[in-house]
Amino acid sequence: MTAAFRVEPWAVSIAGVDVEHLAQEESVFGLSNGHIGWRGNLDEGDPRGVAGSYLNGVFEDHPMPYAEDGYGYPETGQSVINVPNGQLIRLLVDDEPFDVEHGTLHRHERRLDLRDGTLHRELEWESAAGRRVQVASTRLVSLRHRSLAAVRYRVTALEPVAVTVLSEVLANEPLPSPHADPRVQELLSRPLQTVDSAVLGSRTTLLHRTRRSGIHVAVSADHTVSSTAATVPTVTVEADRDLARTRIHVALAAGEELEVVKFVGHEWSDSLTPQTLRDRADEAVEEAVRLGWEAVATGQREALDAYWECGDVRVEGDPRLQQAVRYALFQVFQAAARAEVRSVPGKGLTGSGYEGHTFWDFEAFVLPVLTSTAPDVALQALRWRYATLDHARERARTLHLDGATFAWRTIDGRESSGYWPASTAAFHINAAVAGAVMQYVRATGDRDFERDAGAEILIETARLWLSLGRWDDDGGFHLDGVTGPDEYSAIVDDNTYTNLAARRNLRGAVAAARRHIEVAERLGVDDAEVSRWNDAADAMTVPFDERRRVHEQFAGSTRHAVWDFDATRPEQYPLHSHFPYFDLYRKQVAKQADLVLALYTEHEEFTREEKARAFAYYEALTVRDSSLSAMAQAVIAAELWHLDLAAAYLAELAALDLDDLHGNTAEGLHIAALAGIWTGITAGYGGMRDSDAGLSFHPRLPRNITRLGFGVRLHGCILHVDITPDDTTYRLSAGDPVTVRHAGRAVQLTAGEPVTLPTPPPESPLTPEPSQPRWREPGEAREDG
Amino acid sequence: MTAAFRVEPWAVSIAGVDVEHLAQEESVFGLSNGHIGWRGNLDEGDPRGVAGSYLNGVFEDHPMPYAEDGYGYPETGQSVINVPNGQLIRLLVDDEPFDVEHGTLHRHERRLDLRDGTLHRELEWESAAGRRVQVASTRLVSLRHRSLAAVRYRVTALEPVAVTVLSEVLANEPLPSPHADPRVQELLSRPLQTVDSAVLGSRTTLLHRTRRSGIHVAVSADHTVSSTAATVPTVTVEADRDLARTRIHVALAAGEELEVVKFVGHEWSDSLTPQTLRDRADEAVEEAVRLGWEAVATGQREALDAYWECGDVRVEGDPRLQQAVRYALFQVFQAAARAEVRSVPGKGLTGSGYEGHTFWDFEAFVLPVLTSTAPDVALQALRWRYATLDHARERARTLHLDGATFAWRTIDGRESSGYWPASTAAFHINAAVAGAVMQYVRATGDRDFERDAGAEILIETARLWLSLGRWDDDGGFHLDGVTGPDEYSAIVDDNTYTNLAARRNLRGAVAAARRHIEVAERLGVDDAEVSRWNDAADAMTVPFDERRRVHEQFAGSTRHAVWDFDATRPEQYPLHSHFPYFDLYRKQVAKQADLVLALYTEHEEFTREEKARAFAYYEALTVRDSSLSAMAQAVIAAELWHLDLAAAYLAELAALDLDDLHGNTAEGLHIAALAGIWTGITAGYGGMRDSDAGLSFHPRLPRNITRLGFGVRLHGCILHVDITPDDTTYRLSAGDPVTVRHAGRAVQLTAGEPVTLPTPPPESPLTPEPSQPRWREPGEAREDG
Repeated sequence: MTAAFRVEPWAVSIAGVDVEHLAQEESVFGLSNGHIGWRGNLDEGDPRGVAGSYLNGVFEDHPMPYAEDGYGYPETGQSVINVPNGQLIRLLVDDEPFDVEHGTLHRHERRLDLRDGTLHRELEWESAAGRRVQVASTRLVSLRHRSLAAVRYRVTALEPVAVTVLSEVLANEPLPSPHADPRVQELLSRPLQTVDSAVLGSRTTLLHRTRRSGIHVAVSADHTVSSTAATVPTVTVEADRDLARTRIHVALAAGEELEVVKFVGHEWSDSLTPQTLRDRADEAVEEAVRLGWEAVATGQREALDAYWECGDVRVEGDPRLQQAVRYALFQVFQAAARAEVRSVPGKGLTGSGYEGHTFWDFEAFVLPVLTSTAPDVALQALRWRYATLDHARERARTLHLDGATFAWRTIDGRESSGYWPASTAAFHINAAVAGAVMQYVRATGDRDFERDAGAEILIETARLWLSLGRWDDDGGFHLDGVTGPDEYSAIVDDNTYTNLAARRNLRGAVAAARRHIEVAERLGVDDAEVSRWNDAADAMTVPFDERRRVHEQFAGSTRHAVWDFDATRPEQYPLHSHFPYFDLYRKQVAKQADLVLALYTEHEEFTREEKARAFAYYEALTVRDSSLSAMAQAVIAAELWHLDLAAAYLAELAALDLDDLHGNTAEGLHIAALAGIWTGITAGYGGMRDSDAGLSFHPRLPRNITRLGFGVRLHGCILHVDITPDDTTYRLSAGDPVTVRHAGRAVQLTAGEPVTLPTPPPESPLTPEPSQPRWREPGEAREDG
Repeated sequence: MTAAFRVEPWAVSIAGVDVEHLAQEESVFGLSNGHIGWRGNLDEGDPRGVAGSYLNGVFEDHPMPYAEDGYGYPETGQSVINVPNGQLIRLLVDDEPFDVEHGTLHRHERRLDLRDGTLHRELEWESAAGRRVQVASTRLVSLRHRSLAAVRYRVTALEPVAVTVLSEVLANEPLPSPHADPRVQELLSRPLQTVDSAVLGSRTTLLHRTRRSGIHVAVSADHTVSSTAATVPTVTVEADRDLARTRIHVALAAGEELEVVKFVGHEWSDSLTPQTLRDRADEAVEEAVRLGWEAVATGQREALDAYWECGDVRVEGDPRLQQAVRYALFQVFQAAARAEVRSVPGKGLTGSGYEGHTFWDFEAFVLPVLTSTAPDVALQALRWRYATLDHARERARTLHLDGATFAWRTIDGRESSGYWPASTAAFHINAAVAGAVMQYVRATGDRDFERDAGAEILIETARLWLSLGRWDDDGGFHLDGVTGPDEYSAIVDDNTYTNLAARRNLRGAVAAARRHIEVAERLGVDDAEVSRWNDAADAMTVPFDERRRVHEQFAGSTRHAVWDFDATRPEQYPLHSHFPYFDLYRKQVAKQADLVLALYTEHEEFTREEKARAFAYYEALTVRDSSLSAMAQAVIAAELWHLDLAAAYLAELAALDLDDLHGNTAEGLHIAALAGIWTGITAGYGGMRDSDAGLSFHPRLPRNITRLGFGVRLHGCILHVDITPDDTTYRLSAGDPVTVRHAGRAVQLTAGEPVTLPTPPPESPLTPEPSQPRWREPGEAREDG
């Protein structure tokens, strides 16, 4: 049983409060701008699932515990912590504390508005003493003002009452502990040391410092207060070590109202002085006070309007998918919008799951969406990876490899993984970073970025692949002992996805080195090295099982025993919680699309027949214990005309967080999987593929979808695609003409001149609809937790 | 620089005291009977390297820390702890404490006598005040009286002095911590809680309990005191929570002597009451007091005489090897002699290295020596493994496997490994246990043990292999995803050593199930199951590289890149301390003999040509970062007539602990490697091989060895083998006639009728002498630390 959100085109809303679902709802209602993250905790703080107020990049170090140590194991872990929480607005009605679990809640509504970028709450409450008030709060984390979050809090008396509002900033709220180790728990339980606290006029400032990671955090708050009451509200302000509190008191007659607007400014740094941070946080608040709530809220709407202009996906005929894709885009956008050379964690800033770490799926799943819909945001994220390149070089040196290898899980760029077979060995993250660079440059034409950062990433990762690889006696190039995307196999030779992604990476490095000769020279690249990259790319091994006529996930994979799916009970999923890695690794069972992901990302490397055979083969082995799986399955199912199956996978992705499909949305949203909804629609139903030759489309609508529209940013313009079962219209917003392919045919597009072409007719699939392992059909998989 | 022991045939001795070497010497001079272990700490306790007083089976639990958790990871670790230390005898000369680092040490000798089973110490010391005394102490841990350790401590005055002897039993001495985790450190820093302490007459008793593992320990002590002085020594006795102290004081004239004999009784249990333990410990001491030192010391000598009757190996022409093999046999024997259904740790009871855990090498390396020289001791050890069978069944169930899988590292039988790729996946331990059962039954004819325990082990491990295995489409049987003996590769398919050992295990189970039908029936074995074992054994895959015409260590191993030995600097060994597992696993480099170990243990599976090619191939890849490697290399080098190379490996084994070759003898002796000296000599120079067909020999003496003699216990008798370059004589001590093979020829031996045959002439090796990786030739490897 999960929270039941209403199906609406531009909002996610829910009535009532069920404490059981609070933690999930807090994630779903999370607001962020990529710098600040506020979980959708109730204003008054209690009851709560998990308190969450994060600043992107603020974490605490902790020692990593190993039962048996090994060379190259990271010694220091990183865990996101709660920064001082500015959400809190506690209410007393005639000195009786407002609490949804006490008194009588006559009405309670929460609504996340995807166009306004606000979380709105309305309620009517009667205290145990019988006093009734209405409360309306609206919260935003500003997309326009990077340091700013704000709440407008209105209390309306339904009968004469004295109202007290305690608006707080509270430090050192604990997070759920990621580690059993009490050392780590102790470090993370009160991670912030007070540096200073101050009250200046009505403004409060708290200055804190993390104990080990040495990060300073400044949180300032100020309030504007107005009331229709006869008496002027009294306002008192105080600040202690871990608490800043503004107390507003007023007596209201029936129908009178108190409005408190709270502005909270957030800054942090591991190098600037706390005084500088305080100035900046104060200034953010002062500016907001000067602008006032309406201007801030209008700015929020405008920022989202600008995003939706290209980003919006219109899905007619499937209201759930319509809501889900907009919700997903909203969350993807706000996770990264103002991250500005900081990482975007797997959970965004909506929860502390995965300790706030960023993984490969940011580049592989999230960045393609941002590059296509908000390339300025994508650029910032790529600059963050570039900023970690020295850590990646250092890590490669530690591993005795050339070039650079990026951290598998990290906050600040340093490797924080504790299980090397599924982290250090997963070198494909480097190809994901390189691929994101290449896609960004193709989509934007941003040669400055390529020169200043992208080429260096491509070159250093190409060097990594060369030093990782092995030449065989017959001239083949191999990557031994690596782990691909599927985490139910590890330390394998010639993972097809990795090899093909590395090939692309190598070829990208060749092209970049030739385009940016001065960069290549600076990095000591000579012609011989470029030739070796080319040779390795050409000689890259792609393992194929001649007997079964299917691509192998890795060398020899199809020889292994097939997992005994019939003997596996539904409650034994996810498998890694019920079976040892030992057994998973040596059998044919895929946690997530791996070879099938390659069918999409490396689409030019496979014929349609090969894709059909591979999809049929791997569908029967893929259990989707990872939320990263369904996207590729949806895309390839659609490409192969299994449109019902594609729809089922998309429905599963749509339900992932809104229906808490994996039972862990409480820990934060699955940002990459959410991004996959966009990809599933555009690459699946739109048939969109990206390659050096440009964009191509092959629209294929499932039966229930009567119209599909989406946009893609291309060299600063927007390409709008509008698909019906009969026609597909391409419309370029501005700029130079562009050639795309429609169902294999080249189409020249000129700005302002829409081109309408017949939507290609449905085709028969080459194979019967593939079947999944028992209990793991896309519909059934919803049953597990 | 390591301690320099004298080369002597029946002793290990050293002059002087160098505090730098104390920790190594304490291990080398360790005394044990398999129940009690006393490191060779100086009597007076300080200076010390590492204090060590152990009781086999006394350990403390601790939580196992993981940076990232996984299904089936053991949650509880086990660490050996120090039990109350009864070694301590502190001396004051005119109230000046005797300390080898203060005053003047005119003479200091320690000598481990391998026939007497005593550690003898003699010294002459002059206090800062100029008072001179001679001290002679002799220490033993009784092989005849399981609970008893004893010290005879004599002080002779060289001028008039007052002498005070403080003889103590001291609890809660800390061990070096095996874990960085402070939880674990805290638990292990004072692991013992006092239950009771008592003084009864001159006898003291300390009763303690471990905090978490719930083990009670009783240590009692009593003393006999005599003196040639005019005045009678005064004796006072006291006991506190963690200390029992006996104070003996006497005034000595020049030439007068004080003799204190200390008897210490040790008992422990996790089920008996502490009172019972106290009674038993007291009784052991009372019995010893009644017998007196001379009788106890005579009993010690007799127990060793009985062992040496068969166990002694006589090596003429190589005094270092002569000393080393006797030292090794002494340590192997005393590590297990009175273990009596307890494990024998990798370090014996000579140190806390590996946390006091037992590994596969006990069955694979140590038990063959014990079975051949002290089968009663071997039987006890096998009974210990059998006693852990329920834990092994439980572990198999956790892993969703049939039958039983024994703990990779443990004290009490429960799995305590923290890194599954090199533990859980190393299923070959089960074949080692099964192989030890089979060898024991062959050597002793002990069908009772086979019926009561051995058959069950064979059957349950056979079931394990069946459930681990996979049948291919062509009828081949495979073991995927396992780790063989070589820890520089892991999680591989069809490890040849494992597959062949499993084949032997399966065939052993078939035979045992047929011999013991009632056991098979009790375990639910039917004919179909036995057939499956047979079929799997017959169909077991043995990977072979047709191109290179060499057996693969595992499927595809020879395709991998060869480690870049030329680029590896000598200080980068051992490799696992300087390179990640990731890189080691995917390249051709062997920490230790793996395929080469199979050439010995599964000798019937290879032709001589195959052995020669395989040995040449794998010698070039084997770096011997494990002390378990050289034995098999010595044996196979000898078999292939590379006798200089065999000698070099044996010299390395001889130096391992006596010269502290790996720099870690301080943590305890390498018992399995020491056992390998015996195997290297008997199987290498003696060419002894064991199989269902009986023992075979093929003597091959290296140039410097003029005569080699050793004994093997066979069905209760001793087969003595006496080899010179010209002749080999076989002599059966008693019992029924036995057929052995000599250089391929069957020879019938009758008790009391020695048979002398020509020693086979030297042959030319089939290949040039193989080379090792750079810096890793057997001589050079001594240089690393």
